[in-house]
Amino acid sequence: MKPRILIKQVEWEGQPVDILIEETCIRQIARTIPVAADIEIDGRGKAVIPGLVNAHTHAAMTLLRGIGDDMPLMPWLKEKIWPNEARLTDEDVYWGAKLACLEMIKSGTTAFADMYYHLPATAEAVKEMGLRAVLLCTCFDRFDPGLAEKSKREVQRLFARIHGNHPRIRFALGPHAIYTVSGALLQWLHAFSEEHAIAIQIHLAETEEEVSNAVKQFGCTPVRYLHTLGVLSRQLSIAHGLYVDDEEIRILADHGVQVVHNPASNMKLASGVAFRFVEMRKAGIMVGIGTDGCSSSNNLDMIEAMKLASLLGKAWRKDPEALTASQMLYAATEQGADILQLKTGRMAAGYPADLCLVDLHIPAFTPNHNFVSNLVYAANGSCVDTVICDGNILMRNKKVPGEEEILKQVKTRAQKFI
Amino acid sequence: MKPRILIKQVEWEGQPVDILIEETCIRQIARTIPVAADIEIDGRGKAVIPGLVNAHTHAAMTLLRGIGDDMPLMPWLKEKIWPNEARLTDEDVYWGAKLACLEMIKSGTTAFADMYYHLPATAEAVKEMGLRAVLLCTCFDRFDPGLAEKSKREVQRLFARIHGNHPRIRFALGPHAIYTVSGALLQWLHAFSEEHAIAIQIHLAETEEEVSNAVKQFGCTPVRYLHTLGVLSRQLSIAHGLYVDDEEIRILADHGVQVVHNPASNMKLASGVAFRFVEMRKAGIMVGIGTDGCSSSNNLDMIEAMKLASLLGKAWRKDPEALTASQMLYAATEQGADILQLKTGRMAAGYPADLCLVDLHIPAFTPNHNFVSNLVYAANGSCVDTVICDGNILMRNKKVPGEEEILKQVKTRAQKFI
Repeated sequence: MKPRILIKQVEWEGQPVDILIEETCIRQIARTIPVAADIEIDGRGKAVIPGLVNAHTHAAMTLLRGIGDDMPLMPWLKEKIWPNEARLTDEDVYWGAKLACLEMIKSGTTAFADMYYHLPATAEAVKEMGLRAVLLCTCFDRFDPGLAEKSKREVQRLFARIHGNHPRIRFALGPHAIYTVSGALLQWLHAFSEEHAIAIQIHLAETEEEVSNAVKQFGCTPVRYLHTLGVLSRQLSIAHGLYVDDEEIRILADHGVQVVHNPASNMKLASGVAFRFVEMRKAGIMVGIGTDGCSSSNNLDMIEAMKLASLLGKAWRKDPEALTASQMLYAATEQGADILQLKTGRMAAGYPADLCLVDLHIPAFTPNHNFVSNLVYAANGSCVDTVICDGNILMRNKKVPGEEEILKQVKTRAQKFI
Repeated sequence: MKPRILIKQVEWEGQPVDILIEETCIRQIARTIPVAADIEIDGRGKAVIPGLVNAHTHAAMTLLRGIGDDMPLMPWLKEKIWPNEARLTDEDVYWGAKLACLEMIKSGTTAFADMYYHLPATAEAVKEMGLRAVLLCTCFDRFDPGLAEKSKREVQRLFARIHGNHPRIRFALGPHAIYTVSGALLQWLHAFSEEHAIAIQIHLAETEEEVSNAVKQFGCTPVRYLHTLGVLSRQLSIAHGLYVDDEEIRILADHGVQVVHNPASNMKLASGVAFRFVEMRKAGIMVGIGTDGCSSSNNLDMIEAMKLASLLGKAWRKDPEALTASQMLYAATEQGADILQLKTGRMAAGYPADLCLVDLHIPAFTPNHNFVSNLVYAANGSCVDTVICDGNILMRNKKVPGEEEILKQVKTRAQKFI
C-alpha cells in the first residue's frame, strides 16, 4: 500500500481544488475532499499541471553536455559524439540517465521516450528515479547483413529482459535513421513491433541532406521510402519530420504515424525551421514535443521546449496566432502520452497520478492573467516545485533525494570525455 | 562608505579567484586576496559573470504579462495594449517597474534600457531596487505639430528632472518609431541628443509592413529615411533592425549606430527571423540583445534571450557555427553596456562592481565541460544565486529583500486590466 496523498487547495483551471491520490492514480478532484490522508500537501500559491511528456530524447547524453557546440553536424559527430560514445560504459550510462531523470523531474517531466544504448543501465536509473520511460532499443546495421543479424539478436535479448518487467518502463524499438538502417532491418523491426504491439520511433526527415540522399539512394523522399517499405503504422512515431510535403503529411495521417517536434535541436544544429505543426494537426496527426539529447539541445526542459516550438512556429509562418500556448501544453502532455502509448498526461480521476505543482509566487506568474500563457511563454522548468509520478512523490520543495550524489558522480565520470 | 566585499574562491574563466569590491568598483581579482572584508561571500561551487545588460525593454509592461497572447499585432495593440496603457497611473508603473527589476535581478541583469511612460515612477523603482537604467523618454507626435510641441516640452521637463540626478540612472530619448514620430520631431530629438550628449533609441525596421509603409510614405526604407533626415549618429541605437540590406548595414556602421536584437519578441509577434547579426558584426556595428517588454516576449530573462538569439540565428542561416555562445555572452554584457554608454559589463579591476554568481551545483552545469556553453544553451535565469550592482548586494541565495510585497502589489493592481 502506498501512502494516500491529499493535495489541498491547489489551483486547477483557475479554481482551487483538492486532489486525492490513492495508490498509483488520481482518485478524485473536487472543490474540497474531506478525507484523511497519510501525506497532505499544501497547494496554496501553486497550480497543478499534468506531468510533462518528453517524446524524444537521449537521456545519458547529459554526460556530453557542452562538448562540441557551435560545430557543423558531421565534424561534431565524428570528432565529439562518436569517439566519446565509444567510451561509455554501462555505469556511465546509468549515471548519465540518473542526471537526465533528475533534470527532468526538476523541470516537470514525468515520462519520456529514450533512444540510446546500454538500455538496462537506463532502465535501472529510471526505476530508481521514479519516472516513466519508453526505452527505445537503438538499432542500426549500416546496410551490413552481419550487423543486421546482431541488431536483431540485441532486440530479442533486450525485449526478453525489459518488456513487461516493470510497470513504469516500456520496451520499444529505435531504428536510428534510414541512412544507418537497411530497408530489410526496418521491415523486420516493423514486423516485430506489430507482433508484440510495441512502439517504434525513428529519426526521419531531419535535414535537407537526408532528403536529397534518400532521393539519390532510394529514389524517393524519406516518408515515401518508409511507405514503399510498408513500415508505416500506428506503432510508429518519427522524430523531427521537418521535411515533409503535403502528400507525405497525408500518408503519415492515413497510417496513424505520429510526429515528435524537437525545436531546440532543429534550431541549434541548423536542421531547419519549417516544422509543419499546423498542417499535421489539421490532417489529424498526433504531434508531440521533445527536447532531443543534451548534446544537441543542451537541456531537458520541456517548458522551454514548448516556448521554442511556439515561437519558432509563429516566426517562420509569419503568423502570431499560430501554435498557441494551449496547443503547446496539449502537445507536451496528453498528445505526448498518446504517442508513448501511456495513459498519462491528463488531470482526471482514474488517470495515473503523474503531476506537477508549479510555484505561482514568482515573477513569471505575476500577474496571473493567463496561467497557460505564463507557463509556456514566461516561465521555465525552474517554476516546478513538486512532482508526483505513479503516485510517488519524486520532488517536494524543489528537492530530489540523492541529487548531490548524482551531480558528483557525473562530474567525476565526465572527466574522461574529450 | 559602503561595506567592503570579498568574494572567495569563485570560478572565473575556469579558475578559482578572490574578488575584492570596494565602494562601487571591483578593486582586485586574484588567485587569493588576503585582506579582511566587511562581507565575505563564499564563492565555492559558483561561477562569476558580469551583470547582464538588457539593451531594450519596457519594464512596467510586466503588468500586462499574458494579456493578449497569440494575437495579430494590430488587434493586440488596439484591444489589449493601448486601452490598458491608458489606465496606467504613476503608482502602477512604479510597481510594474519594481516587478521588472525584481525579475531582472533574479535572472542576472544589472543594467537595462527602458522605453516607457511615467519615467519618474520607473526612476524611483530603479533607485530602490539598485540596478542601473537608461530611461528613454518615449516620444511621439503622430505627425501633429501640436503633439510635437507637447513632446518637446515633456523631454525638456524630464531631462531637467532626471538627467544627472542619480549615479545609476541616465536620461535618454526614445522616439517610438518612424510611423508615430514626424521627421521634424526626430530631427529636434537628434539635435537635443547631440547638444546634451545623451543616448537615443528608436524601434526601427521591425516589420515588413513598416518597411513597405516607409517606402510609400517617405520614398525609402527606414534606415535610409533616417539617413536622409540626418539623424544617424553614435548616440543612436535601433531596436529590432530586422529589415536592413547590405547598404543599410554599411550606412549604420559608417554612422556608429548600434543595433539591439530582440529574438523572443521578433519570433512571438512573427515580425521576422532574419536578424543579420553576422553581417552587422562584420561591418563593425555594436550589436546588443534585449528582451523587449513582457507584453511581447513575456519575460525579462537575458539568459533565455542569449539562447534564443543564437538558436534563431543558426537556424535561419542554416549554419550551426554562427552566433556562438561566447558571442552571445559578449553581446549581452560588454556590448550591451557600450550601447547603453555605461562602463559596465566587464569583470576587471577598476570597473563597476556589477556581477552575478551563478550556481554550478545544478544539472545545467553538470558536467561543466564548457561553462559559457552551459550558461547560454543549458541554463536559464534561475541559475543566478547572487547579484551585486554598483557595489551593493541586491540578491543573495536567490532572495531579494521585499519581493513578497512586490508580487502582492502587482497582483492587486493588475486586476483592473482587461
